[in-house]
Amino acid sequence: MTERIRDFLSDRRRAGLDDGPVLVVDLDVVRENYGKFARALPDTRVFYAVKANPEPKLLAVLAELGSCFDTASVAEIRMALAAGASADRISFGNTIKKERDVAAALRLGVRLFAVDCEVEAEKIARAKTETGAEDVRVFCRILCDGAGAEWPLSRKFGCEPSMAVDVLEHAHRLGLEAYGVSFHVGSQQPNTEAWDGALGSASWIFRECAERGIHLGMVNLGGGFPTKYLKDVPAVEAYGNSIFRALSKHFGNQLPETIIEPGRGMVGNAGVIESEVVLVSEKSKSADEIRWVYLDIGKFGGLAETMDESIRYDIRTVHDEDRRVPCVLAGPTCDSADVMYEKTPYWLPVSLEIGDRVLIEGTGAYTSTYSSVAFNGLPPLETVVI
Amino acid sequence: MTERIRDFLSDRRRAGLDDGPVLVVDLDVVRENYGKFARALPDTRVFYAVKANPEPKLLAVLAELGSCFDTASVAEIRMALAAGASADRISFGNTIKKERDVAAALRLGVRLFAVDCEVEAEKIARAKTETGAEDVRVFCRILCDGAGAEWPLSRKFGCEPSMAVDVLEHAHRLGLEAYGVSFHVGSQQPNTEAWDGALGSASWIFRECAERGIHLGMVNLGGGFPTKYLKDVPAVEAYGNSIFRALSKHFGNQLPETIIEPGRGMVGNAGVIESEVVLVSEKSKSADEIRWVYLDIGKFGGLAETMDESIRYDIRTVHDEDRRVPCVLAGPTCDSADVMYEKTPYWLPVSLEIGDRVLIEGTGAYTSTYSSVAFNGLPPLETVVI
Repeated sequence: MTERIRDFLSDRRRAGLDDGPVLVVDLDVVRENYGKFARALPDTRVFYAVKANPEPKLLAVLAELGSCFDTASVAEIRMALAAGASADRISFGNTIKKERDVAAALRLGVRLFAVDCEVEAEKIARAKTETGAEDVRVFCRILCDGAGAEWPLSRKFGCEPSMAVDVLEHAHRLGLEAYGVSFHVGSQQPNTEAWDGALGSASWIFRECAERGIHLGMVNLGGGFPTKYLKDVPAVEAYGNSIFRALSKHFGNQLPETIIEPGRGMVGNAGVIESEVVLVSEKSKSADEIRWVYLDIGKFGGLAETMDESIRYDIRTVHDEDRRVPCVLAGPTCDSADVMYEKTPYWLPVSLEIGDRVLIEGTGAYTSTYSSVAFNGLPPLETVVI
Repeated sequence: MTERIRDFLSDRRRAGLDDGPVLVVDLDVVRENYGKFARALPDTRVFYAVKANPEPKLLAVLAELGSCFDTASVAEIRMALAAGASADRISFGNTIKKERDVAAALRLGVRLFAVDCEVEAEKIARAKTETGAEDVRVFCRILCDGAGAEWPLSRKFGCEPSMAVDVLEHAHRLGLEAYGVSFHVGSQQPNTEAWDGALGSASWIFRECAERGIHLGMVNLGGGFPTKYLKDVPAVEAYGNSIFRALSKHFGNQLPETIIEPGRGMVGNAGVIESEVVLVSEKSKSADEIRWVYLDIGKFGGLAETMDESIRYDIRTVHDEDRRVPCVLAGPTCDSADVMYEKTPYWLPVSLEIGDRVLIEGTGAYTSTYSSVAFNGLPPLETVVI
């Protein structure tokens, strides 16, 4: 929570515009975060993960600071270009792409693509032929168990390291530049050492490819850098140091080019959601009945990451000095699944009441875009960038 | 799948407009469903649950057929009015309402409101005074365990029956008409007998209120009527018969007025989503490696009800005569949580390949509105009503 956000919310309240939840993102915090990444990993290029928050002003600030952009779709590529990034600073990082979208990306000038299987490399090779593009680079994503990360990581992206060698060789034979390896240690990763194992696999793939005459040049270290929710998290510097040690351990003096793809770590702590308490109630008059607190934002209005109670936000109220009681925290829709914290209740002040505003901290990433388009007739989360 | 939907999709394909998933809803099926509900429960008023699918043309057809509307927000009330329903055919069925939204609903002419606690009744009483509205009716929702339902039902809505008596008495003293009781047996409820227990509680509340001089008149039987996914479901007639028996058992000759709130049961089977296979791959060359199939729609593009693999859609392909193999089915976004079926893999034809279209049946309800506004830059699910 910054003074600028506080002032903005006061002004909004005074103007009587505070009907409905709002996400406010402070660009000064984003600037500061970018600086921290740049300093912590000075030889690494930063590719901001646009999906975390694609607000145009935010992208423009990052473009001006020199950031590159990791995109998930042609629409995101267009957003990054509109924000002022040149195409050589954009990666199409989604391993699941329609061939016509690859062609569209090539026509827009993008030359860096993620793959995790041979058929995906074939799509890129065909689209390269179709568009006449040259110097098209691909990197192969490998599986990584994501142990310890707070947002679940499935086996959805990546392949086994041994298969990655074949995929890169296949890409090479198809006329693409087999450029490197990527992995992702899991989103909201509190363990600074989590990169070590995957870097070991990456260096093995570099050696295997070299034996086949293919010389890889780049390791994409992915994201995973956490933002502070309820628990403290290590500083970016600690991640930078740990990653540098692991790189040296596995690659010796032949350090590859590296890139990182922070999303949550870049914008999470730059945003605060203000929401209103719509109802506080109990289900019976029994003394051990738990209290239910209903907000005007829920799982379908932007807090999708509370799914399975994964991400536990820090919620501030005007009564924070008061005694706290366990509460079930739920959203405003007529959907019984729209409950944020129930298995592990959330302790809120006993004096919290209907109409009170609450601040949900650390919500700059993965909120506004998850928001449903109109579930229950409710509009998507309003976002203001200041 | 109807012939009209098939023809529409063929035309769309021929016109080259088939880039991206689309939901097609056949209004003839909706008309048929409305008729089935009206015949199965002839003395019951039908309040269509707008949140299931609020497409304007669909609402207009239902309004013309004489349907009433269960709404979750002021926006949905406006949609029902715009579709041609008069305000006396609209219920504000969300138990979680801002007081200013209650006032807005009263100004729009709505006079029927759900509550599940005393403070919610107080909001309505204050809004009644503020707006000068008269004859404002409230019904109290009670908890119901939802046993057997496929879409999870939490304790989010409703209170214990003993508390409902107090809530209704409180509403009565505040100058509201204590009108009745509502409950919900859980969405996609395959058990036709599921209404029996809750109707027993409702009749007890009627008697308790009568002893306090308050004469309730209505039981809102909620929704829960299923649509066919992979498994067959009982016909609407079976639900009608079972509910009528339970009503007679618990209320004898003094049958209350009844209403139902079908959503899924009204529009689920009227809709089909066409999606494209973006990628088919494996994670290693091991013989027991499972196949991954990625569609251009997923959990954040409209298939939110695959959360925890709750709803299992019937998926048709052009290769359905072929041998089937177990597949993990995933969506197109760069989010590892965007996987529909993994714990219980989905058996799909071994010949299914990139670029094939698949039809996801029974997707008329709870798809388009759940769709995220722009996650990964992907647009919300396109909906066409024919």
